[in-house]
Amino acid sequence: MPTLKQIIEETDTPEGRAFDLANQTLIVLSLISLTIGSLTSLSPTTRSILNLFDLFALVCFTLEYALRVFISTPRRHYVLSFFGIIDLLAILPYFLAWGMDLRSVRSFRLLRMIRFLKLARYNAAVRRLRTAMLLAREEIVLFLGATAVMLYVASVGIHQFEREAQPETFGSVFQCLWWAMVTLTTVGYGDAVPITTGGRAFTLLVLLTGVGIISVPAGLVASALTQARELNDRSSETPPGST
Amino acid sequence: MPTLKQIIEETDTPEGRAFDLANQTLIVLSLISLTIGSLTSLSPTTRSILNLFDLFALVCFTLEYALRVFISTPRRHYVLSFFGIIDLLAILPYFLAWGMDLRSVRSFRLLRMIRFLKLARYNAAVRRLRTAMLLAREEIVLFLGATAVMLYVASVGIHQFEREAQPETFGSVFQCLWWAMVTLTTVGYGDAVPITTGGRAFTLLVLLTGVGIISVPAGLVASALTQARELNDRSSETPPGST
Amino acid sequence: MPTLKQIIEETDTPEGRAFDLANQTLIVLSLISLTIGSLTSLSPTTRSILNLFDLFALVCFTLEYALRVFISTPRRHYVLSFFGIIDLLAILPYFLAWGMDLRSVRSFRLLRMIRFLKLARYNAAVRRLRTAMLLAREEIVLFLGATAVMLYVASVGIHQFEREAQPETFGSVFQCLWWAMVTLTTVGYGDAVPITTGGRAFTLLVLLTGVGIISVPAGLVASALTQARELNDRSSETPPGST
Amino acid sequence: MPTLKQIIEETDTPEGRAFDLANQTLIVLSLISLTIGSLTSLSPTTRSILNLFDLFALVCFTLEYALRVFISTPRRHYVLSFFGIIDLLAILPYFLAWGMDLRSVRSFRLLRMIRFLKLARYNAAVRRLRTAMLLAREEIVLFLGATAVMLYVASVGIHQFEREAQPETFGSVFQCLWWAMVTLTTVGYGDAVPITTGGRAFTLLVLLTGVGIISVPAGLVASALTQARELNDRSSETPPGST
Repeated sequence: MPTLKQIIEETDTPEGRAFDLANQTLIVLSLISLTIGSLTSLSPTTRSILNLFDLFALVCFTLEYALRVFISTPRRHYVLSFFGIIDLLAILPYFLAWGMDLRSVRSFRLLRMIRFLKLARYNAAVRRLRTAMLLAREEIVLFLGATAVMLYVASVGIHQFEREAQPETFGSVFQCLWWAMVTLTTVGYGDAVPITTGGRAFTLLVLLTGVGIISVPAGLVASALTQARELNDRSSETPPGST
Repeated sequence: MPTLKQIIEETDTPEGRAFDLANQTLIVLSLISLTIGSLTSLSPTTRSILNLFDLFALVCFTLEYALRVFISTPRRHYVLSFFGIIDLLAILPYFLAWGMDLRSVRSFRLLRMIRFLKLARYNAAVRRLRTAMLLAREEIVLFLGATAVMLYVASVGIHQFEREAQPETFGSVFQCLWWAMVTLTTVGYGDAVPITTGGRAFTLLVLLTGVGIISVPAGLVASALTQARELNDRSSETPPGST
Repeated sequence: MPTLKQIIEETDTPEGRAFDLANQTLIVLSLISLTIGSLTSLSPTTRSILNLFDLFALVCFTLEYALRVFISTPRRHYVLSFFGIIDLLAILPYFLAWGMDLRSVRSFRLLRMIRFLKLARYNAAVRRLRTAMLLAREEIVLFLGATAVMLYVASVGIHQFEREAQPETFGSVFQCLWWAMVTLTTVGYGDAVPITTGGRAFTLLVLLTGVGIISVPAGLVASALTQARELNDRSSETPPGST
Repeated sequence: MPTLKQIIEETDTPEGRAFDLANQTLIVLSLISLTIGSLTSLSPTTRSILNLFDLFALVCFTLEYALRVFISTPRRHYVLSFFGIIDLLAILPYFLAWGMDLRSVRSFRLLRMIRFLKLARYNAAVRRLRTAMLLAREEIVLFLGATAVMLYVASVGIHQFEREAQPETFGSVFQCLWWAMVTLTTVGYGDAVPITTGGRAFTLLVLLTGVGIISVPAGLVASALTQARELNDRSSETPPGST
């Protein structure tokens, strides 16, 4: 008969796995309830079912938090741990906002998705991703830095050209940053578009240099992941003690 | 003189190849008829020619289905097979909707395009694609998972910021998912655009992290295909019996 | 003293190089004249200068064509060659449309840009590009095929969903192909956007699968070019006669 | 006690590093002031604080320039150097425009960001980037050339098709270049969209060939960076004197 501590904190006993699975199911259900609850055309019955379920989930998560504090030795160990803070942040807003409109408060349960990160710990692909990030670390930082500089220069530049023609859209460097981001990621909503000849010529220049720079990091990660896999295969092929 | 069974089921006799070619030609013609038939400005003559051709194709496909059932031993073998179900689904709606408007029904013939997959079976590039997918399987799953999480978090987040400013466009998480998908794939139609300062700042954040994540899988497939080709070349270079 | 034949057909004598350079300069100037001539706000003086220059270029290109025919042995050899046809197509429309509006006719001189391809023949990067295309040939064909199928299926699918809601924009499969292309390449102008729930759900599906497929070929070319360069380096490093 | 020359020109003494850090902090603060100053809704107090800070920064940069000229031997050495010209260009406009509206003049301080390039000199990733650019130099030039040709041909082509239908947007080849750039980089604002059947068919063609070409260079840089890293690792692994 496993102890409460083993059920909650360990994942390699049948009871531990069952507890984890129940916990994750509740998180997923609670996210589904959040999604459905955002529909404006819900019947009062559906809405009260969702509210009841939310209350149930809140009770469960509060109980889980209390239990985890209780079995932790020393108690402050869990309270001050990363997951302890996450778990508290996911339930605290409900108690603080009691009686008020809960709609904004509900999104805090997204924080619980961070719990899924625990699943990633044992995953080989995540390990290789870490190797890949280490391999390409400096290049990624370099290109992210170049992206930041490019976004800033594009914002200041377009501000000079379009400031007077379109004060509503390009009136400050902050507004221009919106344009720069939407343009350089090639999203191009069309809500902020340069109309002066100077602004358009500047945009051509920015696109020619910037679009390439911004898409290099993704290619770097893909390349480094392939390299990390090869390193991994090679090291697992080599028998220990050889070379 | 080949038997009916050999003509229909085998592809390495001249008669089998002729049957396959006739079948594929009919599928392509039937898709062309579907495409032209969607034009609203067709003359009655053209439309009746298309309708006649559609009837002809239907008779052919029904006959082919009957023949394939007839020669299959045991008969339920083909009826229950993957291609048996596809072939039935491609003709059944015509009989069920007899006398009604056939426009929606016609699209079911798209299912016949799956027949072309058979051509792929003998293709070296498809084999290498399979190798590449196996090589990069875990990474691709990881990044598709990250994409799904990113889309969901972006939807819930923008819902918080834009819900009140634009209830028509960002009123529910489902509507926000449309925005999230159109934005993160960088399509950016411009029909759903955040206008609040908070929503725009959140979008900048989402774009900075998300656009990269969503384009990594394509790079992974390209990299893994190159690796698969190298593996292939190396294994075909190595003479049998060596290391 | 080089013969006329050597000047025109060869590129390794000083006179041949001078002739080629003059020819290429004239092509570039003629393209600049075409570009400036498209401005609607030109003064009559500028326009007559451009027209004079166009006449001059036409005379030069016609003379060049006549000379090339004259020195070719047998004469039909050049007339029927690829560059002979290109050169004729670039000047013929001027004579056919004599006295009529020349604006459309002028674009035919773009064909002369194909002459620049000759420069590419001696370029190492072009040779490696050819190696890369050969290496990745089957994969590129496979993904271009998948792109074509994806575009077609997306067009037929969205036609089903949006046909009735937006007959102006999604009325035929051909109109839907415009939407499919603009969406799958992530251009997303915003002139054709699905508005029905079904159409949007279908678009999400198409984007999830299609955007990746359409960007794999570019990654393949980039990867194969890197591989081609490595093959090249290795073969040039290895001394002849060694393993 | 270090000399003034050592403080300003060297970076490996504590005083030199302190001077550099102060200089860089002032540049960053001056950029922040530029960004905040672009907001139109600033209170008079904030604006006068920013103006005071700008004056302070101007005095500092002028003093720094004077000092650098003073300690340089011979004096024209620094004045005519790359950084000397940059530093002068960043302060000169203030003196030339004294008493006039300073808004446009302020952007010149962006030039000072080039000073940060000095930081890059000691960075390993920048060195590998240089190796990568050298490795893929010819391929990158080839694809940039192809991009330029593609942009030009797309502009001239769409001008033919849309010139009469939309003279405001596609009236000249220069205006069409804006469309070509926005389309081929897949930004797709939606302010210039072909509406004729011919123009749309041409756009499909351009997208099919052009979108791939324009995204190859980024993939090439990513691939070459991975290759440069491997070359680097291999050369640093090999002990001196071995093979």
